[in-house]
Amino acid sequence: MPAKSLFDPSGIAVVGASKTPGKIGYEAMQNAIRFDGPVYPVNPSAEGTVMDREFVSSVTEIDGPVDLALCCVPAPIVPDVIDECAEAGIGGAVIFAGGFAEAGPEGQQLQDRIVETALEGDVSVLGPNTSGFLVPGSDLHATFATDVEHVPAGNVAIVAQSGGLAYALAFRSENEDRGVSAMVGLGNRATVGFEEAIEYFDGDEATDAIVLHVEGSDDARSLLETCEAVDTPIVAYNVGEHDVGEFAESHTGALTGSYELYEAGFAQYGVPTVGSSQELLDAGNALADCPEPDGPNVGVVTAQAGPGIAIADRLQALGATLPDLTPETQEVVEEILPGITFSDNPVDTGRPMPEFGDVVTAVAEDENVDVVLVYELYEAALGYPTDAVETVVEDLEVPIVFGTAGPNEVLEEEVAELEALGVPTFRTPERAADAVGGLVQYARRNRKPRTAAEETEVSR
Amino acid sequence: MPAKSLFDPSGIAVVGASKTPGKIGYEAMQNAIRFDGPVYPVNPSAEGTVMDREFVSSVTEIDGPVDLALCCVPAPIVPDVIDECAEAGIGGAVIFAGGFAEAGPEGQQLQDRIVETALEGDVSVLGPNTSGFLVPGSDLHATFATDVEHVPAGNVAIVAQSGGLAYALAFRSENEDRGVSAMVGLGNRATVGFEEAIEYFDGDEATDAIVLHVEGSDDARSLLETCEAVDTPIVAYNVGEHDVGEFAESHTGALTGSYELYEAGFAQYGVPTVGSSQELLDAGNALADCPEPDGPNVGVVTAQAGPGIAIADRLQALGATLPDLTPETQEVVEEILPGITFSDNPVDTGRPMPEFGDVVTAVAEDENVDVVLVYELYEAALGYPTDAVETVVEDLEVPIVFGTAGPNEVLEEEVAELEALGVPTFRTPERAADAVGGLVQYARRNRKPRTAAEETEVSR
Repeated sequence: MPAKSLFDPSGIAVVGASKTPGKIGYEAMQNAIRFDGPVYPVNPSAEGTVMDREFVSSVTEIDGPVDLALCCVPAPIVPDVIDECAEAGIGGAVIFAGGFAEAGPEGQQLQDRIVETALEGDVSVLGPNTSGFLVPGSDLHATFATDVEHVPAGNVAIVAQSGGLAYALAFRSENEDRGVSAMVGLGNRATVGFEEAIEYFDGDEATDAIVLHVEGSDDARSLLETCEAVDTPIVAYNVGEHDVGEFAESHTGALTGSYELYEAGFAQYGVPTVGSSQELLDAGNALADCPEPDGPNVGVVTAQAGPGIAIADRLQALGATLPDLTPETQEVVEEILPGITFSDNPVDTGRPMPEFGDVVTAVAEDENVDVVLVYELYEAALGYPTDAVETVVEDLEVPIVFGTAGPNEVLEEEVAELEALGVPTFRTPERAADAVGGLVQYARRNRKPRTAAEETEVSR
Repeated sequence: MPAKSLFDPSGIAVVGASKTPGKIGYEAMQNAIRFDGPVYPVNPSAEGTVMDREFVSSVTEIDGPVDLALCCVPAPIVPDVIDECAEAGIGGAVIFAGGFAEAGPEGQQLQDRIVETALEGDVSVLGPNTSGFLVPGSDLHATFATDVEHVPAGNVAIVAQSGGLAYALAFRSENEDRGVSAMVGLGNRATVGFEEAIEYFDGDEATDAIVLHVEGSDDARSLLETCEAVDTPIVAYNVGEHDVGEFAESHTGALTGSYELYEAGFAQYGVPTVGSSQELLDAGNALADCPEPDGPNVGVVTAQAGPGIAIADRLQALGATLPDLTPETQEVVEEILPGITFSDNPVDTGRPMPEFGDVVTAVAEDENVDVVLVYELYEAALGYPTDAVETVVEDLEVPIVFGTAGPNEVLEEEVAELEALGVPTFRTPERAADAVGGLVQYARRNRKPRTAAEETEVSR
């Protein structure tokens, strides 16, 4: 597992470390020193100390454990730094600089030289042209970006082709009181690509789901086969349905125009896909928190019809099935709530009431139901059916996703209780449906026989 | 304008007011007394006072100005209450009870009786089967729902077929530090339907845009013609693409299965449409805050490529055009940032920098550009290009929408500054694109000639 040097290092070298605030070598240094391990500033033309650590002239001169180098130097110097990393036995390097494959033939040559050294010298290279990665759980902030210390530890790993999008996702997750097990911007993928990152985080105990941002990787089949081979649930956001070709190419040097290929491939290999960064996080959180559903059949319980209809509509658009409840369940529901507004699926209780939780449990127990989605506008006098939700999660082991609305200051404590039970809770009806959509796609993954035509599609 | 009695009353009668917490007549009373005007509890079987106000036995006995009655009584009693409202000259009534058109033939008869009285007696009836409405700007909370006092005043009116969805939208808006000029749940639409509500809020000074939630109205053409006739921008969320027929019918007694009809109709009449409640709010906020764009041509300026690509992709899916910038603009941009990552549209500056604002201004000045979308991951050292944004809004009068990401506690003050300039600011790339999508659809509305085939489609 070579990527271990990158994502779980014993010590860090900051190559091109600087005393000048604003410089990449300063910002990276400031982030690096939060790490609970030795951090060495490397700069042949600097003397003295920076942030209380003495400058070293080369990575080969470091006297101590170090297996991650953060390269804060311009593109032309990078190949020599990677040579030295190989010589020093440093197994992981992050290259921030642009000016490689994405910048034309000369940059490509420079990148080729790096790849050659890296492969020979067993250096896992993240980048070039990346803003790095975060592993908040070990205070490992391998980046020059600021404010990253706010991103808390969580159970979802973000693996993004674009560093910018990776940060946007990580901050979004922070703002929703979640967090990430890791955030990786792949950039040009010299030697660490989707496959290497996915394999590493599949083996990471803190990671319960992996979310991918894909702009058009170089080797579709390899990515898809990796997704299929690992045990950790994966969901993908595949960008580029419309023509953004020239711009995208200038970005991470990727082949573009492969949108349809990827969509077909993900479908074939059973990788759930989504259409936006918010959906990516939401589906990822549901896959990370919920037990795996036995199938795509969703039972919806709602305390308000309008959101329930929006949910039922969207779930069907996402490929979920809303099965009829068994006559026994319908009887139980009608016994709990005589004259209930609607006792089939969705079950609409008309308003929340003390028996709401019993209805949720009854639907979760229905043999036709694989996943439960509950929607309830918050009413302070009543709260959420937290006890019933706990039963569904812990005793019945049925995945349950919650949707709600209300003033933050009124409901945030109770939402936190639901989340602590492992129940992803969303603030719009459609986001709850989208999250369930991820679970449903995942449940379907082993059910779709591959056709010869699909095989052809992906190997094109 | 008969709906004035409802939405701008001089005094309120709470019919069925109660001293018992938890009862609808208590909750409605508690909400009503926040209103800055007389509030009369009406209940023939109650004595003394409730919340320091003396019970009155009937609305006909009220001695003072009152033109809004909140009917907190069961369905069978409602027709008599409406009779009395007509007799007392009360011009507006909200009926919370269900058990009318949505509940079958007997309920339909009951509703017919109400409509007859209401039309004869000039009473605007909201509901039955509604959870009421809010006008936060005048502390008018005509509902039994709790926590509604948290929803602040804003400039978007929510008009929803479903009360539940209306509240979900209003609370969502509150949680995003926005607010609403009004929130109306239409329910069964006895006499106040989409048309009446739209016409009223079109004349309301506090309302700069109207957002609609439609589950299948009874008279599509009338709704569409109203949308076309008013001056206030409107955006619609049309639910029901998939089969939710029986459930939806049980809800507000509406005709269902009309999804395609509405989608075609909205397109024909130039009403922007969206696919979720979040998109509805986002597009509504952009339409409310921004000047009307001259056309559908969007100039994108991004400080990070990945989010920029996601934005460009989604904008095109929404029907926006990303025009080439003029050679003059490209020259200016390249002069500002020599060696810029990508100087066409999107303009990608690679990272934020002090000149970022100058690039934004240059793109806004381009004659090919009608709307500007800016995306920037927040960097505290640099902040947002607020001065340039102000110039674009105030001097150039070009609509500008902002997308960003970062830790809330770091960026919320500066985001508030952008919002105060009238620049809607969104926390994911796709939401910024969706909001611009609303502007673009609106700009296109007078450009699409109607065909005979489309006319046939809508009059079916």
